[in-house]
Amino acid sequence: MPHLQSSTDNLGFAQVDIDRLRRQGVPEVVYGAGKTAEQITAILSSLREHGQMPALATRVDAEKAARVAEVLGGDFTYFPVARIGRIGPARAPDGIGTVVVAAAGTSDLPVAEEAAVTAETLGNEVTRLFDVGVAGLHRLLACADQLAGASVVVAVAGMEGALASVIGGLVSCPVIAVPTSVGYGAAFGGVSALLAMLNSCAAGVSVVNIDNGFGAGFLAHRINHMGLGR
Amino acid sequence: MPHLQSSTDNLGFAQVDIDRLRRQGVPEVVYGAGKTAEQITAILSSLREHGQMPALATRVDAEKAARVAEVLGGDFTYFPVARIGRIGPARAPDGIGTVVVAAAGTSDLPVAEEAAVTAETLGNEVTRLFDVGVAGLHRLLACADQLAGASVVVAVAGMEGALASVIGGLVSCPVIAVPTSVGYGAAFGGVSALLAMLNSCAAGVSVVNIDNGFGAGFLAHRINHMGLGR
Amino acid sequence: MPHLQSSTDNLGFAQVDIDRLRRQGVPEVVYGAGKTAEQITAILSSLREHGQMPALATRVDAEKAARVAEVLGGDFTYFPVARIGRIGPARAPDGIGTVVVAAAGTSDLPVAEEAAVTAETLGNEVTRLFDVGVAGLHRLLACADQLAGASVVVAVAGMEGALASVIGGLVSCPVIAVPTSVGYGAAFGGVSALLAMLNSCAAGVSVVNIDNGFGAGFLAHRINHMGLGR
Amino acid sequence: MPHLQSSTDNLGFAQVDIDRLRRQGVPEVVYGAGKTAEQITAILSSLREHGQMPALATRVDAEKAARVAEVLGGDFTYFPVARIGRIGPARAPDGIGTVVVAAAGTSDLPVAEEAAVTAETLGNEVTRLFDVGVAGLHRLLACADQLAGASVVVAVAGMEGALASVIGGLVSCPVIAVPTSVGYGAAFGGVSALLAMLNSCAAGVSVVNIDNGFGAGFLAHRINHMGLGR
Amino acid sequence: MPHLQSSTDNLGFAQVDIDRLRRQGVPEVVYGAGKTAEQITAILSSLREHGQMPALATRVDAEKAARVAEVLGGDFTYFPVARIGRIGPARAPDGIGTVVVAAAGTSDLPVAEEAAVTAETLGNEVTRLFDVGVAGLHRLLACADQLAGASVVVAVAGMEGALASVIGGLVSCPVIAVPTSVGYGAAFGGVSALLAMLNSCAAGVSVVNIDNGFGAGFLAHRINHMGLGR
Amino acid sequence: MPHLQSSTDNLGFAQVDIDRLRRQGVPEVVYGAGKTAEQITAILSSLREHGQMPALATRVDAEKAARVAEVLGGDFTYFPVARIGRIGPARAPDGIGTVVVAAAGTSDLPVAEEAAVTAETLGNEVTRLFDVGVAGLHRLLACADQLAGASVVVAVAGMEGALASVIGGLVSCPVIAVPTSVGYGAAFGGVSALLAMLNSCAAGVSVVNIDNGFGAGFLAHRINHMGLGR
Amino acid sequence: MPHLQSSTDNLGFAQVDIDRLRRQGVPEVVYGAGKTAEQITAILSSLREHGQMPALATRVDAEKAARVAEVLGGDFTYFPVARIGRIGPARAPDGIGTVVVAAAGTSDLPVAEEAAVTAETLGNEVTRLFDVGVAGLHRLLACADQLAGASVVVAVAGMEGALASVIGGLVSCPVIAVPTSVGYGAAFGGVSALLAMLNSCAAGVSVVNIDNGFGAGFLAHRINHMGLGR
Amino acid sequence: MPHLQSSTDNLGFAQVDIDRLRRQGVPEVVYGAGKTAEQITAILSSLREHGQMPALATRVDAEKAARVAEVLGGDFTYFPVARIGRIGPARAPDGIGTVVVAAAGTSDLPVAEEAAVTAETLGNEVTRLFDVGVAGLHRLLACADQLAGASVVVAVAGMEGALASVIGGLVSCPVIAVPTSVGYGAAFGGVSALLAMLNSCAAGVSVVNIDNGFGAGFLAHRINHMGLGR
Repeated sequence: MPHLQSSTDNLGFAQVDIDRLRRQGVPEVVYGAGKTAEQITAILSSLREHGQMPALATRVDAEKAARVAEVLGGDFTYFPVARIGRIGPARAPDGIGTVVVAAAGTSDLPVAEEAAVTAETLGNEVTRLFDVGVAGLHRLLACADQLAGASVVVAVAGMEGALASVIGGLVSCPVIAVPTSVGYGAAFGGVSALLAMLNSCAAGVSVVNIDNGFGAGFLAHRINHMGLGR
Repeated sequence: MPHLQSSTDNLGFAQVDIDRLRRQGVPEVVYGAGKTAEQITAILSSLREHGQMPALATRVDAEKAARVAEVLGGDFTYFPVARIGRIGPARAPDGIGTVVVAAAGTSDLPVAEEAAVTAETLGNEVTRLFDVGVAGLHRLLACADQLAGASVVVAVAGMEGALASVIGGLVSCPVIAVPTSVGYGAAFGGVSALLAMLNSCAAGVSVVNIDNGFGAGFLAHRINHMGLGR
Repeated sequence: MPHLQSSTDNLGFAQVDIDRLRRQGVPEVVYGAGKTAEQITAILSSLREHGQMPALATRVDAEKAARVAEVLGGDFTYFPVARIGRIGPARAPDGIGTVVVAAAGTSDLPVAEEAAVTAETLGNEVTRLFDVGVAGLHRLLACADQLAGASVVVAVAGMEGALASVIGGLVSCPVIAVPTSVGYGAAFGGVSALLAMLNSCAAGVSVVNIDNGFGAGFLAHRINHMGLGR
Repeated sequence: MPHLQSSTDNLGFAQVDIDRLRRQGVPEVVYGAGKTAEQITAILSSLREHGQMPALATRVDAEKAARVAEVLGGDFTYFPVARIGRIGPARAPDGIGTVVVAAAGTSDLPVAEEAAVTAETLGNEVTRLFDVGVAGLHRLLACADQLAGASVVVAVAGMEGALASVIGGLVSCPVIAVPTSVGYGAAFGGVSALLAMLNSCAAGVSVVNIDNGFGAGFLAHRINHMGLGR
Repeated sequence: MPHLQSSTDNLGFAQVDIDRLRRQGVPEVVYGAGKTAEQITAILSSLREHGQMPALATRVDAEKAARVAEVLGGDFTYFPVARIGRIGPARAPDGIGTVVVAAAGTSDLPVAEEAAVTAETLGNEVTRLFDVGVAGLHRLLACADQLAGASVVVAVAGMEGALASVIGGLVSCPVIAVPTSVGYGAAFGGVSALLAMLNSCAAGVSVVNIDNGFGAGFLAHRINHMGLGR
Repeated sequence: MPHLQSSTDNLGFAQVDIDRLRRQGVPEVVYGAGKTAEQITAILSSLREHGQMPALATRVDAEKAARVAEVLGGDFTYFPVARIGRIGPARAPDGIGTVVVAAAGTSDLPVAEEAAVTAETLGNEVTRLFDVGVAGLHRLLACADQLAGASVVVAVAGMEGALASVIGGLVSCPVIAVPTSVGYGAAFGGVSALLAMLNSCAAGVSVVNIDNGFGAGFLAHRINHMGLGR
Repeated sequence: MPHLQSSTDNLGFAQVDIDRLRRQGVPEVVYGAGKTAEQITAILSSLREHGQMPALATRVDAEKAARVAEVLGGDFTYFPVARIGRIGPARAPDGIGTVVVAAAGTSDLPVAEEAAVTAETLGNEVTRLFDVGVAGLHRLLACADQLAGASVVVAVAGMEGALASVIGGLVSCPVIAVPTSVGYGAAFGGVSALLAMLNSCAAGVSVVNIDNGFGAGFLAHRINHMGLGR
Repeated sequence: MPHLQSSTDNLGFAQVDIDRLRRQGVPEVVYGAGKTAEQITAILSSLREHGQMPALATRVDAEKAARVAEVLGGDFTYFPVARIGRIGPARAPDGIGTVVVAAAGTSDLPVAEEAAVTAETLGNEVTRLFDVGVAGLHRLLACADQLAGASVVVAVAGMEGALASVIGGLVSCPVIAVPTSVGYGAAFGGVSALLAMLNSCAAGVSVVNIDNGFGAGFLAHRINHMGLGR
């Protein structure tokens, strides 16, 4: 059972998976929240050294990123809105079609960009449709062509999270819904959007954790590479 | 302070407010759930006797309604989908404009009808737009003219409750959102729809309790009679 | 379907709706939380330039407001308790009647003022009844005349949120209930007040999101201008 | 430490406390829900035999009560609305003053009667104020004299539970708030009323469990007998 | 914008979408819960008449199914564990690969079968792995080959919902997690499994509503047909 | 209805109730959280000026208290653990008996002291039993005499809140339970203790809001003065 | 890795683990809820046939048990209060010491018996302490000797769940807390007891799922056989 | 009843239990959160003086620890990851076998170390298995021998908390599950992991409070010393 055998680089504070590129087609991704700049640097270095690229670190704030960049040098690219750091260039787009990342409001941009940069890095053409919340339906409908041509749609919204349902009714491709913690009062840190998305009356919609732009971008990549032997 | 003085008809099990028509323009409404057919009959009789008409009893199932009808006779009308019984005819429509009652799905009909019959009884022209959930946006947009002409919209939806936000972005009149207990799993008996509606990113939307079609119809009536001296 | 066509001013970080005044009678409102002073300034400038006035920015703290004022100059007015910034003068009051904004306690004032300034800006006579919580019923009953004369009442309360129900029983006009996050312990950041208001036993009461003074003021405006062709 | 020594009558399925009358001034009370008529009969018999009277069994439905009555005979009284069975007569009223039991709506009566019968049984004068919900404030204010004369007030309400706060502001005696499971939708089986009562802005209010009329009546009795050496 | 135009067959109680096969590649699906056998029969008949096949009705119990079968005759197939009724034969499997439906326990079978029958009907090879909960890891690992060969995995589990995370770590294809309402106590009707699945530490996992086997099967179908022009 | 008439001192930011001493026997109490030192000073000055003493301000931190003390001078006493400021001396103890304030742990002391200082100020003998949590039952049982002699017990506990039930079974006087926000993880800021106290299997226990030491001390005072004509 | 290899008896509807006795020292246990009498019979037969005894089926109601007994004959024993069916005799007690099962109230007996019969079956001496809730502390303290002599204590309680904390403070052996769904209102089906037990201030207490008597009995068995090589 | 008698050292702010070593085999443990360095120092000094060692203080941050160390000198050891301070040396390991502490991710280390240091201090051999989350099953299975040889396993995990179930199925010794507050969004501060662990389908698993590493280490110690007369 080959999935149950793997190699790791033991850094003491972490066991870096230096075999995941072969095993799953994508290197291990560093979750940067709660790690120091030094720890992030060490893990990315290990991944680079073992050819596990492009390697991503998510939830890295600008200050940490600057310190990582000092050590890792030009190989390291930082995406400030997405809060993602990357070693190595993005793969060339080679998916089935285009991944559309649609975001309801301006405050949803960090999560949407996390999804978009993740998908782009892994080799997907990405179209961004931002500020297309359902309260201004004309802005969403003006994007109908891009939606109709999508291979996968990532729908990012906080507050009432209705964007996923509306898009789900407009397209015939898989829709990945990402609730965000945007809102106040009864938004409950993303719970309202999460519940709305789970209850979507449109078929073909599935949901990831609140603010999990990375997970949505990663899954969009997998779906957009179905049957391509990669 | 005239609002603090009133007359009641003491039936023992209830103090019937026989002065509310004068005081608030609308007679007391009987909440039928948890009352026997005999109790409902007695209260409606008291209201009829004191000229408090048209009098409504909500949440009355068909079996109870049949027993009430036996006693009260032809004056009593029963609306089976809305589960409403009424003594006396509806008032003639005399509001500012039309009340639109829009419902997302077939299962939302009882709540939508409760709103519609309430508003009609109190003297409002009502347009029903049923089965216009956002997952089939074309059905909703096909009703754009009726929505644009509305004086007030009552938006009834369960599951993800997105209908209120979408309509709120399309119209420039007050929207009353009614979450319903329709759905399963993470619908949590209407909580998901309720939260979505409270977080609506569209301005001009307010919310009533889960399944409270009566409350929405009543408020729509009040809004549709603003400034008319009635 | 004219509601589905609109013009926007693309600022890069936002698509400003410069057509909403024509379409919905009121310009787009800037939600200031999470936006920089520069972003708020740019959007307000765009709205001013396109004649979309009076334009409001809500949830703007004093420090941001000072920086906005430096750029926008005398056209910009700041309401510190309401945390609202405004470009252009308020409209002259031309509604059906008076909007009463009633607040239960001193801590509820920011939300109440947000509602009041919003309604005043859009052209409504506003009467403020502050510190009228139900535990001191005499203070509320002393305002019975103002309540009786209201066209719409906005009831603002935290903690147990009982104010909406009590007022709902005293008046015969629409009541918009605004739960606030005031309280501690089992107040749960406004949830207790929200639930109480949703369960109000008085008819004619609807609810907006916790702390959503703007939404209440906006809806009060719409209701207070019913049938006036504006 | 005498409180830690006691005698019990071992019935196999229960250890009847036959010493509580001496120890706490009131016999053990049988919680009838989930017990068979035979079990209730046996425990009440044991209490009667050991002079522990008046003995109460709460949450006893009419069918069980009939079967208990067959065995226990004339000593047994059943209060159908309160769903209480009792062995032995009520004590003569000997408290400091009157216990007022106020209930918001007709559906709250079973809980209110459970409180009232409990207090009466233990030796308290009880005044019932029913159907005095805050949405009809005139009905509550019409009872101002009875409230002002109360020694303790038990305030029973479901839905938004505002009654406790309003009464708390009107009286200067202890108020025991009893939330009931009356309501639907966001009433959440009494949670909304419970939260409202816990957040009461009136001082002097405390709360018991949802639908716990017995607990409120029992505590009212204790308070109404403070300092009387009984 | 062709997605916004469609044709419906108006049955009075429902607007049957007779154009969805063309628009989205799959006919409208009837949600049978809360509909009568007559209503289900009428909608399926309409779909059959308009060539919208294979047509599915979900959440149809055996008794209703028998009554539907009486009218619709041999065209109608009933899947009792899945509680699905179908008009017309399943499409021949023509997807990218195999859809694996894995279920943790025996009680999860109805939801797993709902997913499996849905995917099979729409033209997918389905492999069932049942009773492979993580507490008996050997049973799951014994299926490693089938998992490794999957095109999409639907992971169905109640209680602690760990199956989705464990499978997510074993495969490199998309995983659709379906929480079920199986369990007791702190399972909270599927909420525990839902939360666990949303928090999966494995990438490539997304989640649908509690017990939503249909939604998972439908989405698996879409993913398994990516890039095939169908 | 004298309770509905009162006099207030209008300070602009607050309507000070200068008649409550006459009406309810106790002056208005200032809730200091969210008020500035200047506001607290002004309200206390107004109360002093109108003879409303002893006047309490709760939730006043040490820094604010120092600034209030500068203005109000020697009349002002600050209780740092209780976070209470007071104008005027405590009343001489004149209640029926002793109020026992029992606290489970050291972290519960601020809430317990808030209750104790409140009760002492209003004229009650107070006995403090601190660090008597149920996990060290011997410490609680060592206080059995003080408990047996209590007129009222205030039971203060966080975490599992079991203290109220255990004391409720030991005494035959009213017990006021105060849940505190002490604890971590599943303590949920006091919710676990609150729920435990509401479900107490001991009769005679009622509950106030989380951390509401003032409310408990105030109610203990009322109960301890029953029948004394004060 | 021997734990990852096992044998199963494939019954079609279930994969019976016929190797668990060797692997884990205890046969697979049948969770009877949601299984038919026929299914329970078949699984127990398979276990008997493969020498996996004593075999338990939990959550079996009396009616199902009678039907199982008809087929399995004298080998089958039914414990009606515990709702457990068993094939084969209990093992002789061979643990380190005695397992004490303590239950707070009569309604907790089914869960307590489930724990007791499970532990007895697996080879443990069990002492039952029933009706020892903390509101009657004398009854619990009267059992101090049995508690002091326990090897493991299973503490079963609903409502406020305080029993676990009080026992945890009295003993120096492991305590397994079992919250039960006994209670009403804010007991929330066992959640209040669960939270209280998780927050126990006594060390050495751990918790299992609501009503999970089997799990507690099983774990008590494991702990009581520590180091015995069985 | 010897458990009910004890001696305490009264420090004013705390009653130090100086008899617990004799009574329960382990000295009182200081919960450092919310205590000052001075208070922690004083309690540890008292425990040292009365021979109550090794004495632990948990939840002590590095800054406080430094100040405690200044006073207590060389006797005091600080474990920075575990945030534990200790007076006196660890006991020599004398348990039945090895306690395995397994943690899912790097962020779970503080909780895991709290458990490990606690168990080591009390006299247990501890094996640490860190970074063995179920999404990389190979890492966990690579530790199968250590797990198989464990006497007790402490399973520490946040997010979906699946580690406890998977380990529970692999071992035949008691498993103590510790949910951690690691995660974001729908992790809800450890609630998701807590619920998953309570619903574990593996027998032999019990749960402690979120982040309660100490409680798990303490209970592991008790279990690992069963029958040893210590």
